[in-house]
Amino acid sequence: MSSSVLLMSMSVDGYIAAPNDGPGNPGGDDFMRLHEWYQGPDGEFGRPAGEPGAIWDELHATGALLVGRRTAEQVDYYGGDHHGVPIFVVSHDPGPVSYDNVYFVNDIETGMAQAKEAAGGKDVLVHGAVTAQSALAAGLLDELQISQVPVLFGSGLRLFDVLPRRVELEIVRVIDTAQATHIRYQVLR
Amino acid sequence: MSSSVLLMSMSVDGYIAAPNDGPGNPGGDDFMRLHEWYQGPDGEFGRPAGEPGAIWDELHATGALLVGRRTAEQVDYYGGDHHGVPIFVVSHDPGPVSYDNVYFVNDIETGMAQAKEAAGGKDVLVHGAVTAQSALAAGLLDELQISQVPVLFGSGLRLFDVLPRRVELEIVRVIDTAQATHIRYQVLR
Repeated sequence: MSSSVLLMSMSVDGYIAAPNDGPGNPGGDDFMRLHEWYQGPDGEFGRPAGEPGAIWDELHATGALLVGRRTAEQVDYYGGDHHGVPIFVVSHDPGPVSYDNVYFVNDIETGMAQAKEAAGGKDVLVHGAVTAQSALAAGLLDELQISQVPVLFGSGLRLFDVLPRRVELEIVRVIDTAQATHIRYQVLR
Repeated sequence: MSSSVLLMSMSVDGYIAAPNDGPGNPGGDDFMRLHEWYQGPDGEFGRPAGEPGAIWDELHATGALLVGRRTAEQVDYYGGDHHGVPIFVVSHDPGPVSYDNVYFVNDIETGMAQAKEAAGGKDVLVHGAVTAQSALAAGLLDELQISQVPVLFGSGLRLFDVLPRRVELEIVRVIDTAQATHIRYQVLR
């Protein structure tokens, strides 16, 4: 069975983007603070050493990406290539995107169904705050992989913000490092 | 040196109180969901078994409590007794409280100074969202002990909400249990 997994880096106060995010400044001011833990042996962005490497491997083992328009636009739809998998973008207003691997879908239900089919039994990677919230509200999110970075951003864009109802989780795995506390949750129904 | 330690239980989406909190319904609807991990061997509220017991012990080793008016009022100022230490309540409008051990202070600076003096070298326990935020903003908070409970509350009162600036933290200790991920942070300056 294909699972849907939200994978995000978040500050301790729940922000995933800093103020002033937009095209040209993806993730907002000093956004990379939340992603410093993606650090390869050469100090550059890449597969982290030690236990967090598993998160990188899991991300690259997913078979499709489901993402919101706002997030996708800020990074030019990943140049049409996010580890080679089909990219499904939730939007009522399909943009002028010509990448072969990018598909617009009208709503979260259609998007998740198409992404799961495209993933062919692999997991579906979910990105973005709006998409996370609508997937949770629709009962379509199976797991959360949150990398909680030891910083209080103070303001910006919240990952969860306000949800229509309480959602119980189960802690599946905790990876404890100095750079981040990586917690994987299963969504209980 | 006396440290100030914020000790709170928080949902994964950053809430410390559910909707409809107030006197008569302290912490809001189903508030106890965040405090189930305080469970003694008899299943009742108390010192938890195993590693989280250390958090209980640290709490009871503090020498003073600094708390906001809103939080204190909801629990009738702890009946004047929070593990026997002096209770400092930050409020511009002292209430009609006759407990011997409760002291009103005008602002966070005065409150922290008096609490530290009263603690006599022991740590100062800090409670409440408003007090946490104003202590952080004033640079008066030394450590955070956050028990992160695997639930998305969806709405309620946020622990950190909006802060005037970014605050860097250092992870001091992670206690990984099924009921909560207990993370202790040092505030970096």
